[in-house]
Amino acid sequence: MARVNDHYLKLRAGYLFPEIARRVSSFSQENPEAANRLIRCGIGDVTEPLPLACREAMHAAVDDLGARSSFHGYGPEQGYPFLREAIAKGDFQDRGIPVSADEIFISDGSKCDTGNILEIFGPGNRIAITDPVYPVYVDTNVMAGNTGAARADGSFEGLVYMPCTPENGFVPSIPEAPADLIYLCYPNNPTGATATREQLRQWVDYARSHGAIILYDAAYEAYIVEPGIPRSIYEIEGARECAIEFRSFSKTSGFTGVRCAFTVIPRGLEARTAGGAAQPLHPLWLRRQTTKFNGASYIVQRGAAAVYTEAGREQVTTLIRHYLQNANLLRGACQARGWSVYGGVNAPYVWVRCPAGLDSWSFFDRMLRHLHVVVTPGAGFGAAGEGYFRISAFNSREKVEEVCRRLREEWE
Amino acid sequence: MARVNDHYLKLRAGYLFPEIARRVSSFSQENPEAANRLIRCGIGDVTEPLPLACREAMHAAVDDLGARSSFHGYGPEQGYPFLREAIAKGDFQDRGIPVSADEIFISDGSKCDTGNILEIFGPGNRIAITDPVYPVYVDTNVMAGNTGAARADGSFEGLVYMPCTPENGFVPSIPEAPADLIYLCYPNNPTGATATREQLRQWVDYARSHGAIILYDAAYEAYIVEPGIPRSIYEIEGARECAIEFRSFSKTSGFTGVRCAFTVIPRGLEARTAGGAAQPLHPLWLRRQTTKFNGASYIVQRGAAAVYTEAGREQVTTLIRHYLQNANLLRGACQARGWSVYGGVNAPYVWVRCPAGLDSWSFFDRMLRHLHVVVTPGAGFGAAGEGYFRISAFNSREKVEEVCRRLREEWE
Repeated sequence: MARVNDHYLKLRAGYLFPEIARRVSSFSQENPEAANRLIRCGIGDVTEPLPLACREAMHAAVDDLGARSSFHGYGPEQGYPFLREAIAKGDFQDRGIPVSADEIFISDGSKCDTGNILEIFGPGNRIAITDPVYPVYVDTNVMAGNTGAARADGSFEGLVYMPCTPENGFVPSIPEAPADLIYLCYPNNPTGATATREQLRQWVDYARSHGAIILYDAAYEAYIVEPGIPRSIYEIEGARECAIEFRSFSKTSGFTGVRCAFTVIPRGLEARTAGGAAQPLHPLWLRRQTTKFNGASYIVQRGAAAVYTEAGREQVTTLIRHYLQNANLLRGACQARGWSVYGGVNAPYVWVRCPAGLDSWSFFDRMLRHLHVVVTPGAGFGAAGEGYFRISAFNSREKVEEVCRRLREEWE
Repeated sequence: MARVNDHYLKLRAGYLFPEIARRVSSFSQENPEAANRLIRCGIGDVTEPLPLACREAMHAAVDDLGARSSFHGYGPEQGYPFLREAIAKGDFQDRGIPVSADEIFISDGSKCDTGNILEIFGPGNRIAITDPVYPVYVDTNVMAGNTGAARADGSFEGLVYMPCTPENGFVPSIPEAPADLIYLCYPNNPTGATATREQLRQWVDYARSHGAIILYDAAYEAYIVEPGIPRSIYEIEGARECAIEFRSFSKTSGFTGVRCAFTVIPRGLEARTAGGAAQPLHPLWLRRQTTKFNGASYIVQRGAAAVYTEAGREQVTTLIRHYLQNANLLRGACQARGWSVYGGVNAPYVWVRCPAGLDSWSFFDRMLRHLHVVVTPGAGFGAAGEGYFRISAFNSREKVEEVCRRLREEWE
């Protein structure tokens, strides 16, 4: 008799964003007129047109598939050399960061990569995650059997939670409980915080001395505008011996619907077998990808490679400036209300303390019902997110300005 | 200290196709002149231009992403309704097969789906696979810890192997050992065999009476030209209560480089929890996909939907006829040599008994060195494939005719 994976049954009813969608849909059905003026600043999804350079490259790629001589069938599961090399040079080597093309694995998304990476790790690893956190890190560990049962507050037994608060600048200190796999994400989703070189160095030192692996999500690195903030974990000495880095074209280049991302696994990065032997992770991930994945779409990889052309770079920079200017406006509007505001400077997310002692979902409902603006309740990202909300800068300027106006004029 | 998934270490050195690539590359370096006339009939990868209807739809989709009003960011993880509905109607309902759009999950490939599906099943399931078989079924079970160690012949302890031979028409009988998850693939890769309605009915009856789940890979259903052969497991009464079906646009529509596939999980299909309760699988797979996947590319889904337009259908039919005619020519050339030939009638693969008592890899090497033609050694698909080779019909007519000529004139 076939048996299911019982770990799935530990998961709570809703992944955060489906629950938001449910509440918005229910509100819209009850209030069809208000629904017309609804502005979504909840899910972190881009809104602006895809850069022209990427579109042109994808048109050309579609045409390639129309002739036998330029047809592309199965590509390398790890991604085409043209894209891996462009990334290695553009994102790393040109910035003095030692990452080579064969350490880069192209995929169809960081959500897949950050979830699937757990497959190459065994049971018994102690998992440390920040709180608040991108829910996928938690849920994929639950599904993989790396946690115990859910607690009443939505947290899971067996995980090491590392609270991120204004007091520690939303960068956790080394936990007292030992950790083997450590999730870090900077610029941070949801708080918009960045980590300094010194803070990351402490984590790298910890990981190296304890044989731990840092899973570093740098999906928002392109939003870093202030000097001196590390864009890659590999800017920290020793990180190649203890860290995997995840990056994505989603938020950088508007690829949330196009689907392209990549994972860096340095040669020489090792973990341990059950017998205690050192085992490089690069061949394990290569085996995982060649066996369970067939490469990202050729068309999409051509589009992603265009990001590294001169025109592509300029267009992407313009796109990021647009969203950062949105973030700046939203920060200002929240600050003008007297609210405590974090992030939104080197990140497309603004993290705000809910006013008047409201909890996250009450604030969410109030924003939805009074301002007809969808935000993300901080509690959806973890217990330490309670009492906060995240507002996303991914929107047109017009809508962001309207949200700011409503915050000024309609909030009661 | 971080621990790896030790199950990966049970895997043998090479996934079949990388090993072929290695031998071909090594031969080509040693024989640069012969390399120029190399013809690849090994990996089952399409070669002909993508249907025009699909290219037109993808061009339009790229343009959609160029304007805010038609921009598409994150889509539904399960796929866009426009594609799910087109599939439900075109592939199932119009043929009288009861599958609804919300039972269809769009993905970026069947290799992903057939591998990832194991995540929703627990440990302790007894896995039955045909032999020979698509290596991904075996390897993903090894990686998931569902097997014991590798044996000297490449098989794994703990799997129930079901030999497929000319004697049983390459459709296995019900095994004596009990099975909980049963992999079936028809039209078959690698043997090109099809299963009759009666043969599938026996499997469905077995699965229903034992609470087993059939994982039915129908990636090649579009190649069925003879009447009366089931194209979907759901043509068999009761299959909705015991089967998951995998389908792909790769071989049908030339999408191996474009990447689109889908999985059907009927509402009401159930397996058991550890406590013995019935648990529907649809919500588990929905949860898996919404948590670990972000949907197939919008551009790609638009391209796939074009397959169901009138123009798309005609172009796909032409494409399939082309490959089937290739298969027919290859069958004829092998038969003319006096070899025992199977498949290639309702499938793009011809399965041939190696002549002169050669084993699979010896035959592979001889074809490579003497005819400069790459085939796939049957032993790479499992122990029962030893002594056979697979020749793929995915090629231009010109190259297939040249392979036939060499088989006639150059084989010694």
